[in-house]
Amino acid sequence: MSKTYTIAVIPGDGIGKEVTPWAQQALEKAAEGVADFTYEPFDLGAERYLRDGAILPDDELERIKKTDAILLGAVGDPRIKAGILERGLLLKLRFALDQYVNLRPSKLYKGVTSPLADPGDIDFVVVREGTEGLYCGAGGAVRRGTPQEVATEVSINTAYGVERVVRYAFELAMKRRKHITLVHKKNVLVNAGDMWQRIVDKVGEEYPEVSHDYSHIDAATIYLVSDPSRFDVILTDNLFGDILTDEAGAVVGGVGYSASGCINASNEYPSMFEPIHGSAPDIAGKGIANPTAAILSAAMLLEHLGFDDAAKKIHAAVEADIEELGSTQRTTEQVGKDILARI
Amino acid sequence: MSKTYTIAVIPGDGIGKEVTPWAQQALEKAAEGVADFTYEPFDLGAERYLRDGAILPDDELERIKKTDAILLGAVGDPRIKAGILERGLLLKLRFALDQYVNLRPSKLYKGVTSPLADPGDIDFVVVREGTEGLYCGAGGAVRRGTPQEVATEVSINTAYGVERVVRYAFELAMKRRKHITLVHKKNVLVNAGDMWQRIVDKVGEEYPEVSHDYSHIDAATIYLVSDPSRFDVILTDNLFGDILTDEAGAVVGGVGYSASGCINASNEYPSMFEPIHGSAPDIAGKGIANPTAAILSAAMLLEHLGFDDAAKKIHAAVEADIEELGSTQRTTEQVGKDILARI
Ligand SMILES: CC(C)[C@H](C(=O)O)[C@@H](O)C(=O)O
Ligand SMILES: CC(C)[C@H](C(=O)O)[C@@H](O)C(=O)O
Repeated sequence: MSKTYTIAVIPGDGIGKEVTPWAQQALEKAAEGVADFTYEPFDLGAERYLRDGAILPDDELERIKKTDAILLGAVGDPRIKAGILERGLLLKLRFALDQYVNLRPSKLYKGVTSPLADPGDIDFVVVREGTEGLYCGAGGAVRRGTPQEVATEVSINTAYGVERVVRYAFELAMKRRKHITLVHKKNVLVNAGDMWQRIVDKVGEEYPEVSHDYSHIDAATIYLVSDPSRFDVILTDNLFGDILTDEAGAVVGGVGYSASGCINASNEYPSMFEPIHGSAPDIAGKGIANPTAAILSAAMLLEHLGFDDAAKKIHAAVEADIEELGSTQRTTEQVGKDILARI
Repeated sequence: MSKTYTIAVIPGDGIGKEVTPWAQQALEKAAEGVADFTYEPFDLGAERYLRDGAILPDDELERIKKTDAILLGAVGDPRIKAGILERGLLLKLRFALDQYVNLRPSKLYKGVTSPLADPGDIDFVVVREGTEGLYCGAGGAVRRGTPQEVATEVSINTAYGVERVVRYAFELAMKRRKHITLVHKKNVLVNAGDMWQRIVDKVGEEYPEVSHDYSHIDAATIYLVSDPSRFDVILTDNLFGDILTDEAGAVVGGVGYSASGCINASNEYPSMFEPIHGSAPDIAGKGIANPTAAILSAAMLLEHLGFDDAAKKIHAAVEADIEELGSTQRTTEQVGKDILARI
């Protein structure tokens, strides 16, 4: 008998609601016979907030903590002031569940047209720190709204937090092409940048087979356009990882193909899997959002739970689907069904 | 008789030394009959630092303050720890001379091959704040080198500093296609982002002809790849401006064509003009660096001093040169001579 896993499902806002059901179906089908899933749905996001003012109530967070993993759609709604849902829901989950590895693979699939004239072979993973840096919510403002206003944002970085994600990146590199590029801005952010570099150098000594180099964030945005195939594992902080993975999504033909995992690699709390795209209010409700990234998040969830073969089924189905039909206009449902049929 | 201007010349490191003389020659030739220049050279950069430990001595800074403008090549050398020259020389100049507008035009010239398959018409200007944000050097570390190390970086933003650069951007937009895109990350950096947005909204009311919208930094890196022609004036903070202008440089075919001005728009101190590329140690000494960006910096210097016609001569010469010869391999000297011949 196969084990049953409880998955928290947070479809969230906009197209998040449209793509998440396809991720669930892909999960089921790929894991048939090896794992079963029960779903615990959570009504969190803009609608809920507008209805009763709740963002992420404590008791719901506690229930989420008891699940085995989380599938998330997207969070964000133009009716709500920027930051409220992002910091109160999405980032709160990442921080409360100590999801310190934000794992974001970028791959140019056969059949997808990159906006680059000569993209080459693109296949890298960004290992983005997920619980520190400028995302920690430190900072404030004085004399708000006056000509004397001062607003600060504080990036807090700890050796503890950096070392664990650095170790994760080296382990990952060992399973890949054994090359890490640390991205930071150590010529300006000398305190944090210097610490990152020292820790990478130190941990790197334990992995003599893995080479590592360094790129400033500004230069890295150039390489993503001029020579993206140079990258294998990109290791970086929370903000730079946010920026680079969106640019990477564009370079591999759109964020519609990019999934991500917010991973608590020590397994004290559930990890969370989500497409890197947002709630896309401009196309929400039209039934045209591409569910591929959500489906790929399901594959990452399966890998995380140890079902590598089931995850491979999804990857193979997605690759075949894109290669054959990637350039045709399809509805969410069509893409979902086409991929499911191949799993 | 034409007026004489004193220009501080800081060739700096690597290819900075190779391209700066061409900027001076272009300046002279374009301004013939309308302005004269005397040059005050400053031996600042890696060589000087390695020789006598000096980075930017006070008396030299005072002499620089007395000049009319500064031509800078590039700063940075792999023999020197990241941050020392950048913060001690380049950023110290920007801050000490209160160069609060970092102006960075991006244009795809006819004859240049963009790495994008379908770049469209690219012609925008990034107005980057130059004296605040994460560049202010606030932050520190405790328990350095131990497992308990904590390193911080503080972004300081003031209404005073933001409003003056916002006003500059609106004035600039009035002379262009009248559209501003504010780029920030206000869904995470809520204190600073909210202040930027409020000030843009407020100043925007004084410019009803100028439309403005907003993009998160991560989304902006996507647009630069997927639809760069949507931008006219991009207005952003110090760090985001650094990142976006490098990516923009890549998109318009390489930072070899991108010049910048570090401008004290209230004219209390001299403004500084520099290519956005770095010292490029990998190609330094080979005589192959492209002097176009440095020459375009000379044009920006001329515009700043009010010599628009002279500046136009340089722009026209550069455009003609690139259109005709942009795709041929040439040495620094050849490109320099070719452009000069057209001025
Ligand atoms: C919505 C936002 C807070 C989030 C982030 O910045 O991390 C998103 O851009 C992402 O990349 O997951
Ligand atoms: C060298 C570095 C400090 C500098 C910056 O970050 O501003 C450079 O990248 C630039 O864009 O002028």
